[in-house]
Amino acid sequence: MKALAPQHPEWKDKEPFASLLKGDLKGALAGGEAAIFQIVTVTHSGMTTDEFEKIVQDWITTAKHPATGRPYTEMVYQPMLELLAYLRANGFKTFIVSGGGIDFMRVFAERVYGIPPEQIVGSSGKLRFLMRDSKPVLMKLPDLNFNDDKAGTPVGIQMHIGRRPIAAFGNSDGDLQMLEWAKGGSGVRFALIVHHTDAEREWAYDRTSFIGRLDKALDAAQAEGWTVVDMKNDWKTVFPFGSK
Amino acid sequence: MKALAPQHPEWKDKEPFASLLKGDLKGALAGGEAAIFQIVTVTHSGMTTDEFEKIVQDWITTAKHPATGRPYTEMVYQPMLELLAYLRANGFKTFIVSGGGIDFMRVFAERVYGIPPEQIVGSSGKLRFLMRDSKPVLMKLPDLNFNDDKAGTPVGIQMHIGRRPIAAFGNSDGDLQMLEWAKGGSGVRFALIVHHTDAEREWAYDRTSFIGRLDKALDAAQAEGWTVVDMKNDWKTVFPFGSK
Repeated sequence: MKALAPQHPEWKDKEPFASLLKGDLKGALAGGEAAIFQIVTVTHSGMTTDEFEKIVQDWITTAKHPATGRPYTEMVYQPMLELLAYLRANGFKTFIVSGGGIDFMRVFAERVYGIPPEQIVGSSGKLRFLMRDSKPVLMKLPDLNFNDDKAGTPVGIQMHIGRRPIAAFGNSDGDLQMLEWAKGGSGVRFALIVHHTDAEREWAYDRTSFIGRLDKALDAAQAEGWTVVDMKNDWKTVFPFGSK
Repeated sequence: MKALAPQHPEWKDKEPFASLLKGDLKGALAGGEAAIFQIVTVTHSGMTTDEFEKIVQDWITTAKHPATGRPYTEMVYQPMLELLAYLRANGFKTFIVSGGGIDFMRVFAERVYGIPPEQIVGSSGKLRFLMRDSKPVLMKLPDLNFNDDKAGTPVGIQMHIGRRPIAAFGNSDGDLQMLEWAKGGSGVRFALIVHHTDAEREWAYDRTSFIGRLDKALDAAQAEGWTVVDMKNDWKTVFPFGSK
């Protein structure tokens, strides 16, 4: 948003942009899902795929988390990195399934998790192929193509991967159907939920959180016997840079 | 179609199904693209993804090409198999980009080309996740999700692969934009068109063919200096089972 703001002077007086540019996340999210959709739409369309990738690369190189002052590329979970490495060392192919924008996640995930662009499943906007100054480009349009959340996650998995995962890992109600889908196949299956319980080292939230709510999936985990990770008690290290 | 016909007695009196079931391809295609769309819709929807995969597996095991009597798994091009093996032996990751249905191509391409399901780009219908008899399933719906043809091909490539190919291979006008997209990136690029010129060993068609028309892409290849393969003169072997 901040990188694009100079080209959009009108954002200064228009919500949810005005609040967000002032760093007031709570004010920006007062508009609920419609506000989030507006933010995603303006930041993820109106440019080519190449231009968008460049914006994300620049953002990743410079942006820092407001609370920790660390680059976002370091704000990843050490146990997740270890799990991905362990699975790959044992012949598994690893994928990211995210509610986030697929083209954003691709840049981030390749750099941080070593997962290539074609192994990312995510939400997406529509694209249009056209010639601009005799060069072929793909324009990112302001129309939703696919929302990779809840009942969308197994659809996204089938669309992009084309086979059912035998192990799946989530941390919110948005992941419930993905975990059901993974567990619903034949043979040995594994489903795991990370429960954010550590307010001191990370964050603690679950059943009433507006973002990342974990309620129905926690009930399902208990009913179905899925593995639940209690971040506070089960994780010795949270972030790669070391945490108490 | 033939495998599904017993469940659809009404097809006997309804075009394009009636002609197709009698083996009259020309009659079935008299209805043009609308007829093709109807055929694809009824054969690619109304079942779960698992059921569809089973139908394709059965078809692949039993169906034979009407002219050669060979299984369709053998009706593939030996030079294409060699090219895929050569590229992979040299560190390339290989993908299929097809106008055909993605879930059909996945079964076929894994078996025949050794390309896994997540490396297939194709046309697709919409899917819906639901619980059926307490088991999670993905239903294939009779609505088009994505048409991987012409200007759709670079969109499909971006959606599924997320990076621009550095080499692309096609054989029809449906591949033109994919080839333009591949050639439009920076650095060394390669685009190739296979021209079906061999009526004796395979088929000969190009500018006026209803199916697989090669007209604009042939002009583009000449204008842009892309490689054009003349099947009759350039290919020593066409099919793996050997041909004159």
